[in-house]
Amino acid sequence: DIQTLRLSVSQLEKGGYPHFMLKEIYEQPNTIFDCIRGRVVNNATEIKLSGVIDHSDRFINARRIIIVACGTSWHAALIGQRLLQDIARIPTSVEYASEFRYSNPVLTSDDIVIAISQSGETADTLAAIKLARENGAFVYGVCNVVGSSIARETDTGTYIHVGPEIGVASTKAFTGQVTVLAMLALAVAQLRGTISQEKLSEFSRSIEQLPSLIKETLKLNDAIEKLSSTYTYVRNFLYLGRGYNYPSALEGALKLKEISYIHAEGYPAAEMKHGPIALIDREMPTVVIAPSDELHEKIISNIQQVKARGGSVIAIVTRGDTTIPEIADHTLEIPPVPEALSPIIVSIPLQLLAYHIAVMKGCNVDMPRNLAKSVTVE
Amino acid sequence: DIQTLRLSVSQLEKGGYPHFMLKEIYEQPNTIFDCIRGRVVNNATEIKLSGVIDHSDRFINARRIIIVACGTSWHAALIGQRLLQDIARIPTSVEYASEFRYSNPVLTSDDIVIAISQSGETADTLAAIKLARENGAFVYGVCNVVGSSIARETDTGTYIHVGPEIGVASTKAFTGQVTVLAMLALAVAQLRGTISQEKLSEFSRSIEQLPSLIKETLKLNDAIEKLSSTYTYVRNFLYLGRGYNYPSALEGALKLKEISYIHAEGYPAAEMKHGPIALIDREMPTVVIAPSDELHEKIISNIQQVKARGGSVIAIVTRGDTTIPEIADHTLEIPPVPEALSPIIVSIPLQLLAYHIAVMKGCNVDMPRNLAKSVTVE
Repeated sequence: DIQTLRLSVSQLEKGGYPHFMLKEIYEQPNTIFDCIRGRVVNNATEIKLSGVIDHSDRFINARRIIIVACGTSWHAALIGQRLLQDIARIPTSVEYASEFRYSNPVLTSDDIVIAISQSGETADTLAAIKLARENGAFVYGVCNVVGSSIARETDTGTYIHVGPEIGVASTKAFTGQVTVLAMLALAVAQLRGTISQEKLSEFSRSIEQLPSLIKETLKLNDAIEKLSSTYTYVRNFLYLGRGYNYPSALEGALKLKEISYIHAEGYPAAEMKHGPIALIDREMPTVVIAPSDELHEKIISNIQQVKARGGSVIAIVTRGDTTIPEIADHTLEIPPVPEALSPIIVSIPLQLLAYHIAVMKGCNVDMPRNLAKSVTVE
Repeated sequence: DIQTLRLSVSQLEKGGYPHFMLKEIYEQPNTIFDCIRGRVVNNATEIKLSGVIDHSDRFINARRIIIVACGTSWHAALIGQRLLQDIARIPTSVEYASEFRYSNPVLTSDDIVIAISQSGETADTLAAIKLARENGAFVYGVCNVVGSSIARETDTGTYIHVGPEIGVASTKAFTGQVTVLAMLALAVAQLRGTISQEKLSEFSRSIEQLPSLIKETLKLNDAIEKLSSTYTYVRNFLYLGRGYNYPSALEGALKLKEISYIHAEGYPAAEMKHGPIALIDREMPTVVIAPSDELHEKIISNIQQVKARGGSVIAIVTRGDTTIPEIADHTLEIPPVPEALSPIIVSIPLQLLAYHIAVMKGCNVDMPRNLAKSVTVE
């Protein structure tokens, strides 16, 4: 018996997935494996990034780091800021590339500018790099596309190595960027002596576990697809997170905005009471990123405030959390992961939530209206 | 003939205005006059802030400034960052107080932490100050309420002196904060020799002119009241600005959010194409802050992009602009003002727009739902 297989070229490219975005979400156990391969080395006792090794004096003497980026990469930058400050103890700030390029920054040759861009072609980021170099700063690139303009225009850098990203809404590039920034913080900390060998090994082993943790987290897909139908006709969404997951809230909101055209906005959870809480009612649900960390009690209180005002809550919690499932409308459990790496795991349910809501709304998730994959114009 | 005057105590307190918020908006020519009085001195050749004079060594040797704040004060902080970098040439970053307090900041005794709070009682900002002092930083307060906790817990500081603010949505405190930060940047620049006497005098004279420029800008009230009726039933709004007015966009959006419960979001204009532009359609209007500055051409292009996608545009432009009125749906003209001070003038139409839309929606503008005037809890 000959069976005819009906598949178009585009279906083949999508590897059986209905959209590139879903394929790319599911690729993440592999892309993160590729991203860390050869970089977490010697039985997880060492982080090896050639860009850091070749320019160790720059990192040892760094007075300040400024990260420039746009869009999703800007959210990765905010997580990178926290990683570099916490682990490598270098004062770090983040700027929108489009703002930085037209500012008059205070830069010296002791400063490091890190530029993040998936495509390596983002016009504003390229212009920011040019300005940084003119001012004598050392420029480190974090991009995906090998040989791209940013890779060529920077002094050195680290590729995220997650393979071509086709979906306009970035998924695997984001998790790759955060993973590179975590490794960068560790490599620099190693150089500067701001981390013990024990802590370095522990953190490195956690990085090695990311692919399997992502794989486990992807099992949330069916539950997320199911709950998504409840929110298809919602017009506004709030996303809240704290600490390392405040940028996750921004990124989760951006994903939904990009592909479902729902007006979603991210906020640091504690800022809710300085304005956004006025918006909360039955028509505006809130996604709360609430892993079990030091600030767990605070975020429980945020959830209670939303509930008290009639809002519904989708909470992302750590497996075993018994408090939040009792007050939230929907709970999504992720496996335990160190706080500094949690944005990578948290991003999986956020990507899937945006994806399923957009698909149910009938949106073109791979090519959302008005958006380009790489913004090569100002 | 005896005429009976029918006025309640609350009406008397409101000075004849229907709401405290409108009264406070209209007070700004006077409050800014009070704010600068005795500080721009010697025929505008000198800025005199005792907090800077008494601690000149701290400012001369400052390695870095970190501004901590919440809500509206956080927006003033973003403008302050730009002022301090541009004029005093000190690397400056901004943190949400609620995030900073639970972070592990890289701080030394060469760092200055500036804390901004209208009430001087904001719990997160107080906790951030405590952490900064424990880490040896010098802490400078910018508050309104004399003798408040923040005024007492900081090393020194500058009061904004705008009088009691009753409306929950901050108006005159915001313009006072920005005015103080502009004077602070100038005073520090004077000390550090990063500004010429000529430029200092020019800038100081512009500060002295702010009260009359605000007075002139308030004449927009009737036009804004009229156009507000068009937007009463809108559920989502986008606010865009660049450079000094990117924070103005955030603050304009927050005002609308707080008192009208419309989901308004601010963005740096160039970031629009990295996501928010997907939201634009006939149901989501955009407020574009587009004064005639170096980036005027760029922002015209942003307006064209919004129009091309069917969105309507309310533009705030400099008097004499002939291009934007031809493409925007509504144009509000402000008088010419130096770019670094433009957020103060721009905030007047943004405050009035939020006010009139909220009043037309029947909202309680002075006491919006779910919000407190001063957030003294976490």
